[in-house]
Amino acid sequence: MAQKPSIPKGTRDFGAAEMARRNYIFDTIRSVFRLYGFRPIETPAMENLSTLMGKYGEEGDKLLFKILNSGDWTRGVDPAMVGAGEAAKLTPKVSEKGLRYDLTVPFARFVVQHRAELQMPFKRYQIQPVWRADRPQKGRYREFYQCDADVVGSDSLLNEIELLNLVDEVFARLGIRITIKINNRKVLAGIAEHIGAPDKLVDITTAIDKIDKIGMEAVCAELGERGLDCAAIEALRPILAIGGTLDERLCALETLLAANPTGTLGVKELREVTDGLKATGLRAELELDVSLARGLNYYTGTIIEVKARDVAIGSITGGGRYDNLTGVFGMPGLSGVGISFGADRIYDVLNALDLYPAEAQNSTRVIFLNLGAAEAAASLRAAMDLRAQGVAAEVYPDTAKMKKQMGYADALRIPYVAIIGEEELAESSVTLKNMATGEQSRIALDALAGALS
Amino acid sequence: MAQKPSIPKGTRDFGAAEMARRNYIFDTIRSVFRLYGFRPIETPAMENLSTLMGKYGEEGDKLLFKILNSGDWTRGVDPAMVGAGEAAKLTPKVSEKGLRYDLTVPFARFVVQHRAELQMPFKRYQIQPVWRADRPQKGRYREFYQCDADVVGSDSLLNEIELLNLVDEVFARLGIRITIKINNRKVLAGIAEHIGAPDKLVDITTAIDKIDKIGMEAVCAELGERGLDCAAIEALRPILAIGGTLDERLCALETLLAANPTGTLGVKELREVTDGLKATGLRAELELDVSLARGLNYYTGTIIEVKARDVAIGSITGGGRYDNLTGVFGMPGLSGVGISFGADRIYDVLNALDLYPAEAQNSTRVIFLNLGAAEAAASLRAAMDLRAQGVAAEVYPDTAKMKKQMGYADALRIPYVAIIGEEELAESSVTLKNMATGEQSRIALDALAGALS
Repeated sequence: MAQKPSIPKGTRDFGAAEMARRNYIFDTIRSVFRLYGFRPIETPAMENLSTLMGKYGEEGDKLLFKILNSGDWTRGVDPAMVGAGEAAKLTPKVSEKGLRYDLTVPFARFVVQHRAELQMPFKRYQIQPVWRADRPQKGRYREFYQCDADVVGSDSLLNEIELLNLVDEVFARLGIRITIKINNRKVLAGIAEHIGAPDKLVDITTAIDKIDKIGMEAVCAELGERGLDCAAIEALRPILAIGGTLDERLCALETLLAANPTGTLGVKELREVTDGLKATGLRAELELDVSLARGLNYYTGTIIEVKARDVAIGSITGGGRYDNLTGVFGMPGLSGVGISFGADRIYDVLNALDLYPAEAQNSTRVIFLNLGAAEAAASLRAAMDLRAQGVAAEVYPDTAKMKKQMGYADALRIPYVAIIGEEELAESSVTLKNMATGEQSRIALDALAGALS
Repeated sequence: MAQKPSIPKGTRDFGAAEMARRNYIFDTIRSVFRLYGFRPIETPAMENLSTLMGKYGEEGDKLLFKILNSGDWTRGVDPAMVGAGEAAKLTPKVSEKGLRYDLTVPFARFVVQHRAELQMPFKRYQIQPVWRADRPQKGRYREFYQCDADVVGSDSLLNEIELLNLVDEVFARLGIRITIKINNRKVLAGIAEHIGAPDKLVDITTAIDKIDKIGMEAVCAELGERGLDCAAIEALRPILAIGGTLDERLCALETLLAANPTGTLGVKELREVTDGLKATGLRAELELDVSLARGLNYYTGTIIEVKARDVAIGSITGGGRYDNLTGVFGMPGLSGVGISFGADRIYDVLNALDLYPAEAQNSTRVIFLNLGAAEAAASLRAAMDLRAQGVAAEVYPDTAKMKKQMGYADALRIPYVAIIGEEELAESSVTLKNMATGEQSRIALDALAGALS
């Protein structure tokens, strides 16, 4: 019996229409990456599990897709442990490789492995799929693309300025109005010290990261549960409530953290970055958000998050500065800063706003109908001529009914139909139909490329 | 202790220089695919094992990379079978998904699954990596890209003509001189019938596929071992020895197979395709090769193979017509024809012939040196202006020693270095150095884009 075909849950097929839209996004991001001097790398889909394990927390380890060893994978597996269901302990016996979970850890591994050949600062971009054995749900997939750009080997804040200009350019090209939220980990650390709870930094950032979702009171309640005393929470309130323009917020923060060196340094960095952005001219709205912490605890300086202004959806781009990306692979103290574009959410935003340019939606400019052997032969030659002039053209392969051939052109939204019939063949002409207007005219064959451009 | 980073054997990292070369190949193939009206699709890296198993023979099943089930994968596994080392029987218990082995089976699955939405004929291209747990060796990898184009839902030979013109165009653009070898499965079947061994078709094609490698005598010996009698082998010899021009070969074959309807149909198809190619004008050398059978036994008509004329390497592109791609998924009788470009071998050929254009090798056109905060700020703005005019530019992020900054530009082969120092800053000028010639001149800042283009 024939199988009913399907694909694993949480994965997707992309047809031609979706691919055109996705490629429009990737091509836009890629060309801006290049304009800013970032260079592409690619790493294998599979990494050794020793590279991946322990890098994403206990939960992350579980979400790694693991590759079953080839050949007799039962060798070295204790049957008693199988009986006892000790899957976690047995996994390293039956699997040595896993699918990459993000592009950050493979990038760190790449930098360390190829350190001898790399020029520092190293500016790389990488656009590849990643895999996570997450529970699939709306907008969350088990296979999705990440688009990352990072500079490592330079602690200059100029990199932050360049990356934010790059982000600004990508979204300007896509036509998406954005707000860039910015913060600095040193400001967060300074706040924790300032309120007398320096050891609670992780608890504080985890809690205040939720302020947009659950509100100030719920965050304060959660901070209480996490062991912050009332004095600390009260000291935190005015900081979280800072409002006003970017400059007003920076001034308020500067004053509040004046006695704290870490926080003061963080404010100074924020000022340098935002001043730089003012000088280069940012189209996006820029907002200092002291509640911005982001999940990953590995940022050490600037923290960045981008939201679409006209569509209610989570962060569509994020990033920040880190100081110890490569430490776990034996190369400590390499500072870097990076951003990651969320292609799937950007796709959703463009769909919601219907922002795809018409050119991005189809590729073939003209299709020749097939009215018989001699006519098709002439059409083939005419199509070849067009292609030589850069015009994407196809020839309907079968001598099918006119209605069917026109239906094909229509369904694929091919803008022009070219017809070489008996008469056209005799006089070296072609009848060209504009599918949008219905207009139709007979022109000389050698005028066709001109008529189509 | 820090881990020494490495990647799984048979996989590769691609640095910026290799990526530039690889992208040049993929971009060339992709743009020709588009010119011919092929539309992109993408399928997930993971397919259900039920989709993949049994499609590549017993050996292929072993070479599939299988994904270990998430969670407690020991559930349902009989410990006794683990003890007995019955890995093959247990694999379906611990794994439901595998990595795609080629693009053909996922494409067939895609066509059947989305048949309701697809317009026939369906012309798709697909450029994605595939994975095989093969023993890694020189030129053979466990992860590599395939670049496929197929037309399904049309049995017109016009598709063959178009695909071969497409192949011709790709290699003309890449500058690789090629020979296209062509054959037809019906000719092979006709030969088997003609020599009185119709049931030995697979043995005959498997053996004569090796004629280039082991020679006529060894092939005849092998055919004897495979059970062909002397009369059959003697009847085969004149067919395998057919030589001369394309037309001479077609005539000889036509005469020899005149009494055999299958073979005669095959010759007629070959003639139609080669006549069509003559009419459209092929730059490649076209050779009728009756020993061409290719490994896969699923071709039913035209068989195509491309060899580089100036580099001794295996086939760099191959393909053919098939009539039952989708039958196993419940959609019988769908005819199609496709080709697959071997990107890794094309990469090797281009390297051997040193055929990469200079433009393909670097992206950044100019780098601004960093001589201090005010100078860098001016450089940032100048870089932004250049990018707005489409010129890829970067700014060295740190105020490092001149020698180090120049070394960076040199190592990355950035063709121009721009210097805004104190003097240039004062007069809104820039010193531009051509890294190839060493020439250096000071020009007005607003003349920079012009000087770089």
